[in-house]
Amino acid sequence: MNPRLLSIEPSLIRALHAKRKPDSIDLGLGEPTLLPQQRFLEAATRWASEFGTKYTVNAGDAATREKIAAHYAYPGMSEARNVCLTTGSQEAVFITIKTMLDPATDELLVVEPAFPAYVKMAQLEGVPTRRVQMREEHLYRYDIDAVVAAIGPKTRLIAIGSPGNPTGRVLTRSDAQRLAKALGERPGPPVWVLHDEIYRELTYIDGPGYVAEFYPHTIVANSLSKSNALTGMRIGWVMAPVPAIDALVLTHSWVTATASAFGQRVAYEIFSEPGALTEQSQWYRKQREGVMSALDDSGLQYVEPDGAFYACVRLPNGGDSIAAAHTLVDHRGVVAIPGRIFGETLEGWLRLSWVAPLPAFREGLRRIADLTSS
Amino acid sequence: MNPRLLSIEPSLIRALHAKRKPDSIDLGLGEPTLLPQQRFLEAATRWASEFGTKYTVNAGDAATREKIAAHYAYPGMSEARNVCLTTGSQEAVFITIKTMLDPATDELLVVEPAFPAYVKMAQLEGVPTRRVQMREEHLYRYDIDAVVAAIGPKTRLIAIGSPGNPTGRVLTRSDAQRLAKALGERPGPPVWVLHDEIYRELTYIDGPGYVAEFYPHTIVANSLSKSNALTGMRIGWVMAPVPAIDALVLTHSWVTATASAFGQRVAYEIFSEPGALTEQSQWYRKQREGVMSALDDSGLQYVEPDGAFYACVRLPNGGDSIAAAHTLVDHRGVVAIPGRIFGETLEGWLRLSWVAPLPAFREGLRRIADLTSS
Repeated sequence: MNPRLLSIEPSLIRALHAKRKPDSIDLGLGEPTLLPQQRFLEAATRWASEFGTKYTVNAGDAATREKIAAHYAYPGMSEARNVCLTTGSQEAVFITIKTMLDPATDELLVVEPAFPAYVKMAQLEGVPTRRVQMREEHLYRYDIDAVVAAIGPKTRLIAIGSPGNPTGRVLTRSDAQRLAKALGERPGPPVWVLHDEIYRELTYIDGPGYVAEFYPHTIVANSLSKSNALTGMRIGWVMAPVPAIDALVLTHSWVTATASAFGQRVAYEIFSEPGALTEQSQWYRKQREGVMSALDDSGLQYVEPDGAFYACVRLPNGGDSIAAAHTLVDHRGVVAIPGRIFGETLEGWLRLSWVAPLPAFREGLRRIADLTSS
Repeated sequence: MNPRLLSIEPSLIRALHAKRKPDSIDLGLGEPTLLPQQRFLEAATRWASEFGTKYTVNAGDAATREKIAAHYAYPGMSEARNVCLTTGSQEAVFITIKTMLDPATDELLVVEPAFPAYVKMAQLEGVPTRRVQMREEHLYRYDIDAVVAAIGPKTRLIAIGSPGNPTGRVLTRSDAQRLAKALGERPGPPVWVLHDEIYRELTYIDGPGYVAEFYPHTIVANSLSKSNALTGMRIGWVMAPVPAIDALVLTHSWVTATASAFGQRVAYEIFSEPGALTEQSQWYRKQREGVMSALDDSGLQYVEPDGAFYACVRLPNGGDSIAAAHTLVDHRGVVAIPGRIFGETLEGWLRLSWVAPLPAFREGLRRIADLTSS
């Protein structure tokens, strides 16, 4: 058996969810509670009645890729050939790490707090990782100087999520420009940036920054999972300049061959209807208002979400977030994700998703605030 | 960049398809020409209108897995926990090679002629391969003695497709029993068998053999792609005994997280309706009768297909099958796949798929028979 597999720590998120009781308040959810826009599934079903659901080329249906590329219109990656449709953004990130790094010589730099999968995928591929911690005293705002200072001689890829999971922090336009400038000025082989934009349509601040607008060595991962409540459709994509995209498509061709042609058609329909990609964003904006009010009332210290649908709150006494999460699920009927798993800098904090109804969110906060020791 | 990626030969099948002209006779197709059973897509769409398309657990929806496991009822893998739903059988095979073999110490044995992806996936994972050739003089019938004799000290997994792509050869029950007996009697760590059953529902001989019925160290890959004309739905699965299945699910969880929940629901519907899995098999049986008659009339030497939807034919003068395939697509308007890419033993042969209309198949055979030199 592959020994690297055994070296990866099992998912604590899944372990906590497995302990959930039917009446638990679930603030651990990583997916929308809205239903998807049914009309797009129906359109894809009608399309399949005429054309079936056949293999597409490995990168995916060209018309769908063209629409996606044109929608984002990033410099150097605005054509169909710059897009590869994937099984969710999970496969997009996986093939990026697998393709862009040589395990023998290269290293991945992860900007933490971060989605734990980046590090675990690197472990699966035998790629060494380095981590840079955004700081609690900055309430986890992105610190470009710290990111650049953390680049080592072997660093060839930086993984950064913005809007970020778990903090909801968003790179500003100035952050993206400064990162591009610093990386562009480095001598030697380029350091690539993987900008995970999966929460892009759920951004609540003005002037968010997209690294691909300023830096040519950028790979963008995204999907319809969060924007359109389609987590289970498994339609994501990776965008990159030529020739990086060709290498990504090659890896993808051996891993899964193609993304679902049915799901690709759903994507085609969504990108064909102006506004469909952001139709559900309004719900999140409104929900966030109630969330902010509940957070203010809770007395807990929190990170104001610039994007995504999470709020990080500090445990009343800080401390061991994993123990606190177990106490919460076992004895207080609340599922919350310990900050520690997203990076050591988030120890003492919990990640709460706020897609559950607001009264449940408020009650969950109350129970967390009641934890006098963790 | 990952240097292993660059060491993999590009797909010649794709290169030949790219040269196809609008009026070419396409005998290169690797997918059904039937439409899928629309009622199952419609049922899944109705289901999504009520429940959305959310993440399932990594292995896939438990009710769907239970139906699949119960349908095949292989010893030691007949429960939901023995099944992991994947993005087509491509991901099923990929995670099997990635999970079951340690690139530092293990080796994959491929029974050729074989689907080229087995070797290419192993290359991508850095796993050494050994190949064993079924013989032209046996018309590529499975030769269990040859397979067992080819096992080396580092061989830990044998990949075998039955019904096979490209030859359509099928393991008999006696073959499966003899393989199980020989492997069971070997001292030392077990040699696993990956039985790729993707063409299982398209079997035309009596008494086909399934390795999993006789040998506990078997992993089965399958999908709905060929049986139900759902190549583009990307729903496959891998079945294995505990604890191998747990390791496979872990790899799958990092590669793609889950298979499409929509596609999983389509599978649930198909496995819920008796006969739905084999409803399209009748079309292939009937088509095969016409194919056999056309092959007899062609004067070409051929491998009678025991299963799948391919016929291998020998070039009139044998010889360089890759050059012949280029000649056919460039100058004779026929797409056919050179035998060489499936293993050196199939040099001098072509793989023809017979899902195209019979008159086109007959005309394609005529043009191939006309090749007096290749």
